[in-house]
Amino acid sequence: MNILIKEKILSQLLGAQGIPISGQKLADELKISRTMIWKHLKSIEDDGYVIEAIKKKGYVLKSIPDIVSPERITPNLQTEYLGRNIVYYPVCDSTQNIAASIAREGAPHGTVVITEEQTAGRGRLERSWDSSANKGIWMSVIIRPEISPQFAAQFTLVSAVAIARAIEDTTKCSPNIKWPNDLLINGKKVTGILTELQADMDRVQSIIIGIGVNVNQEIDAFEQSIQSIATSIKIESGDEIDRVVLVAKILDYLEKYSNIYVENGFEPIKILWESYNCTIGKRIRANLLRETLEGVAISITNDGVLELQLDNGEIRGIYSADIHLI
Amino acid sequence: MNILIKEKILSQLLGAQGIPISGQKLADELKISRTMIWKHLKSIEDDGYVIEAIKKKGYVLKSIPDIVSPERITPNLQTEYLGRNIVYYPVCDSTQNIAASIAREGAPHGTVVITEEQTAGRGRLERSWDSSANKGIWMSVIIRPEISPQFAAQFTLVSAVAIARAIEDTTKCSPNIKWPNDLLINGKKVTGILTELQADMDRVQSIIIGIGVNVNQEIDAFEQSIQSIATSIKIESGDEIDRVVLVAKILDYLEKYSNIYVENGFEPIKILWESYNCTIGKRIRANLLRETLEGVAISITNDGVLELQLDNGEIRGIYSADIHLI
Repeated sequence: MNILIKEKILSQLLGAQGIPISGQKLADELKISRTMIWKHLKSIEDDGYVIEAIKKKGYVLKSIPDIVSPERITPNLQTEYLGRNIVYYPVCDSTQNIAASIAREGAPHGTVVITEEQTAGRGRLERSWDSSANKGIWMSVIIRPEISPQFAAQFTLVSAVAIARAIEDTTKCSPNIKWPNDLLINGKKVTGILTELQADMDRVQSIIIGIGVNVNQEIDAFEQSIQSIATSIKIESGDEIDRVVLVAKILDYLEKYSNIYVENGFEPIKILWESYNCTIGKRIRANLLRETLEGVAISITNDGVLELQLDNGEIRGIYSADIHLI
Repeated sequence: MNILIKEKILSQLLGAQGIPISGQKLADELKISRTMIWKHLKSIEDDGYVIEAIKKKGYVLKSIPDIVSPERITPNLQTEYLGRNIVYYPVCDSTQNIAASIAREGAPHGTVVITEEQTAGRGRLERSWDSSANKGIWMSVIIRPEISPQFAAQFTLVSAVAIARAIEDTTKCSPNIKWPNDLLINGKKVTGILTELQADMDRVQSIIIGIGVNVNQEIDAFEQSIQSIATSIKIESGDEIDRVVLVAKILDYLEKYSNIYVENGFEPIKILWESYNCTIGKRIRANLLRETLEGVAISITNDGVLELQLDNGEIRGIYSADIHLI
């Protein structure tokens, strides 16, 4: 089966907008037999597309599967490099593991690994992350900005802003960001971001941004114990979302904001981040690697560091922590 | 060939200090035939050890090969974890590549990859590094400290101090450190350090410290073009050094100073670093990733950042750069 020819046929069907395409015309254009056309159409149907054969007219695409495949994402993209190389798996252990592995082997700047379902999705601090089939966005993005590793941590905030903006654009929801990068809708978590770094002391080799978004889950998709803290876009808006549109929008904004950060520094990103933030000005408890602090979150610095004013007046800069609003 | 039995025989020979060990005694103790003992001795000789057979008395070790094998390093170590797992290659492409790869596969904290000769040794910024056979120390150390990635960069200074101290202890040379981590003897470079990081935003997964030390090279081992800037310990001191002793001492100090840094912060390391430094107070040119700056190096901060005072009075913090004393 020639994948390129299959993609060309699918792309013609997608572009035809309901007008039948004749099998003979496809065969002539692609210089293959009618039998081969028929075999490719069979294979496209196996992927979940519904194709109707109309006598003497040709083939019409009747429905598109609810999948986040490259051929569905690409036409929606407005990026220059992000998502121009997409590695797609119907199911995999963890997009983050795959991305880390292909990044080391030289996967190009902007490569996206995306899947319908993860069997071993993971979040920050090796916590497991539920990523059930066809209901969310589970992807990892590989970028290779020319920056020192000291400037890599801010990408976690860049990503949060890009996803918040994309959700705002494509749904009825208005997300907030809890420092550093949890997206909340109506106070419940809808997104997880995990940023990993491969670097030497001079230069970032790759940043791998793992993005999980709960999109079309119903409330019973979440275990009882987390129903009060986790949610999906569908639960909060009532609407079923085309995940492909949201994926493309996230990639658009992520490329845009990454470029802004690399070219103009953190200041413009910080202003955007602050416009979504629900942490600053609040009393919080911060669980750090080695201690727990309580106080008022007063600002973030140009390094993306959270400044916490303790009860004794002391101000502490926090690089990473679990934050609880209290 | 059972490697464990070979190591046991070698260890007995090394421990016998010139007193002959009978082949029958070895055979009895290890519960193998005299023929097998003889085959193992043959294999030990193939590694470069010289063994003399004295009639009716037994075997004596007459000379030890000039190699940095685990069985030679281990007896010299005083560490708890560093070098307790040594991966040794007579020749390899790059210890740093091997270390990065086994680190991702879970190699334990403190693992050392060491070789006699690298065919593709590399330094900072993908520069090649000449690492000729049996003349230098070419090794990579994997450590997994429980710290945030923001505190990883300082390990490059921790390493510089450890190596400087080890050279001071085992040779007649007094090295200086040019920020951040070049060791100079009489103004010429004797050591390269390359620190790489695998991390997520919460935690360091591994730091891989690549260490290259020019030890026993003669001046003609260096290309004409770098003879004015590169040197070896032998060139500067006139003495041939047992590399194994220096390797063990480097690992001892590296473990000690790493522990101090993780437990007590950068302040004590900074004081040590300053005692070796030949950069602070000097006029320098700094080639950064995106620009070149000139000015006076005035101090290093507690983050290991070099503070450079430009001619207009402005003070700039430099995270990483090539520094030239001018």
